[in-house]
Amino acid sequence: MPGKNTDFQHWARSRQGLVEEALNRLLPPADVAPQRLHQAMRYAALGGGKRVRPLLCYAAGEVTEAELERLTTTAVALELIHVYSLVHDDLPCMDDDVLRRGKPTCHVEYDEPTALLVGDSLQSLAFQLLAEYRVADSPQTQLKMLEHLARAAGSRGMAGGQAIDLEATGKTLTLPELEFMHIHKTGALIRASVMLGANCGRELPSKDMERLDHFAKRIGLAFQVIDDVLDAQAPTATLGKTAGKDARQGKATYVSAMGVEAARAMALDLKREAVESLASFGERARRLRELADFIVAREF
Amino acid sequence: MPGKNTDFQHWARSRQGLVEEALNRLLPPADVAPQRLHQAMRYAALGGGKRVRPLLCYAAGEVTEAELERLTTTAVALELIHVYSLVHDDLPCMDDDVLRRGKPTCHVEYDEPTALLVGDSLQSLAFQLLAEYRVADSPQTQLKMLEHLARAAGSRGMAGGQAIDLEATGKTLTLPELEFMHIHKTGALIRASVMLGANCGRELPSKDMERLDHFAKRIGLAFQVIDDVLDAQAPTATLGKTAGKDARQGKATYVSAMGVEAARAMALDLKREAVESLASFGERARRLRELADFIVAREF
Repeated sequence: MPGKNTDFQHWARSRQGLVEEALNRLLPPADVAPQRLHQAMRYAALGGGKRVRPLLCYAAGEVTEAELERLTTTAVALELIHVYSLVHDDLPCMDDDVLRRGKPTCHVEYDEPTALLVGDSLQSLAFQLLAEYRVADSPQTQLKMLEHLARAAGSRGMAGGQAIDLEATGKTLTLPELEFMHIHKTGALIRASVMLGANCGRELPSKDMERLDHFAKRIGLAFQVIDDVLDAQAPTATLGKTAGKDARQGKATYVSAMGVEAARAMALDLKREAVESLASFGERARRLRELADFIVAREF
Repeated sequence: MPGKNTDFQHWARSRQGLVEEALNRLLPPADVAPQRLHQAMRYAALGGGKRVRPLLCYAAGEVTEAELERLTTTAVALELIHVYSLVHDDLPCMDDDVLRRGKPTCHVEYDEPTALLVGDSLQSLAFQLLAEYRVADSPQTQLKMLEHLARAAGSRGMAGGQAIDLEATGKTLTLPELEFMHIHKTGALIRASVMLGANCGRELPSKDMERLDHFAKRIGLAFQVIDDVLDAQAPTATLGKTAGKDARQGKATYVSAMGVEAARAMALDLKREAVESLASFGERARRLRELADFIVAREF
């Protein structure tokens, strides 16, 4: 369906444009002190990335007919948490990487202490924005969104997944162990992206929120499986980050656990399950379905 | 007034006990995965420190007759932000320190990537708690508190002050430049401690909030001036952190800028100004006054 695809691409590009514009507006200006820190925050957050978490937030917001402006603020908060995690993950004491989103990593372009503070400050800014701007019908819902994002980012979410990843390096993980790691490392923030996007609009019955959450869990895992496949197969120039790193660092991945073909098949199965849970939403979940297709078909 | 002092010490110890108990309860259990990360978070946050920010929060809460439970949750959030900043500041790429609160620093006791994730996770947890528990009369006030804490922690607050400190190392700063650095580095979180403590109780006229803010600004600076004096004069065993570090690292301090005697006199002046702005609060500001005395008279 090339027509549909073109329409999706147009939608995605327009939303990516809104996120870029809002990041540019909401990040501290580069000429405000401390200038170097603010420049580095902008360097890390602007002009790159697929913005998958923002797109999930926008797409989920269509299910609850959320206002675009609320979705943009929420999408920016989600992306800031993601970017902070990339900046810290790339540090020498972590993955020690030099390339991210097609550019030198933050600590290479600036320096290590600045990159540390960039990550710290981006995290604070994410919570600031969700507290400062009106992103939901009620302040109670907004507090729930803040709590959800903080849990997703913290030691039982994304940062915890990073810790599990560190401990697992060089070990062979079983598939359930691998899944446990990714539920934390990437899954938590992807779930938060879908749930917070939905929270921006009208309240859904809890049954419907569970359906969205089920979608998010399955598509989050599919995203990670494809990430592992791409790390093993795609060239660095396409990825915009160092390819083949997982194998060199002895990381447990879906490719090391089951091979490329089985991993791709697993991702397609997960996508099918994810999309099935959207059935009752009809046309309102169209962008979520299209995003699911994009996530498993992407080549970068 | 030894009688008054004993009463203050009793008050301070009881509040420190409440914070310790609440930290123990609110930090993730050490036996929950990822265990090593959770152990390290507990290691960094429990059993140490003067808990100055929590005490300021409790003392400000007495001005607005805030419930103790709300103050404790808020005090924990403030302390978690402070502890996260210590863990990151001690990292090899920053101050590279081995001793904190009388124990090996987090990256020495565990390892560098774990310490990085400890700081990241403690920051998330602080915002989670302020969103999750009821800490104010209205959710609107609670959102304001979250925004205030996020700003105080971020690039135009504490993390920004750290960046200014990095750039200033090895340089001679003017007194206004030094003050600019400390307004960010320690001042922002100390102001947040007073303001958030007050926010836990009944709403004050904005004039009264400005008075509290004035108190917080002056006492925050006094706190930093005394910190510089103690770094230059107190032994490591008393401080529980490496003494004499500022001079060795070529840091600009109030002692390097004006000498020990003038710095002590400046701290006393700042305290006097701070306490003057509490005049209209009468007995309700008693603990804030006592804390101000403690902050400039402390020997560790």
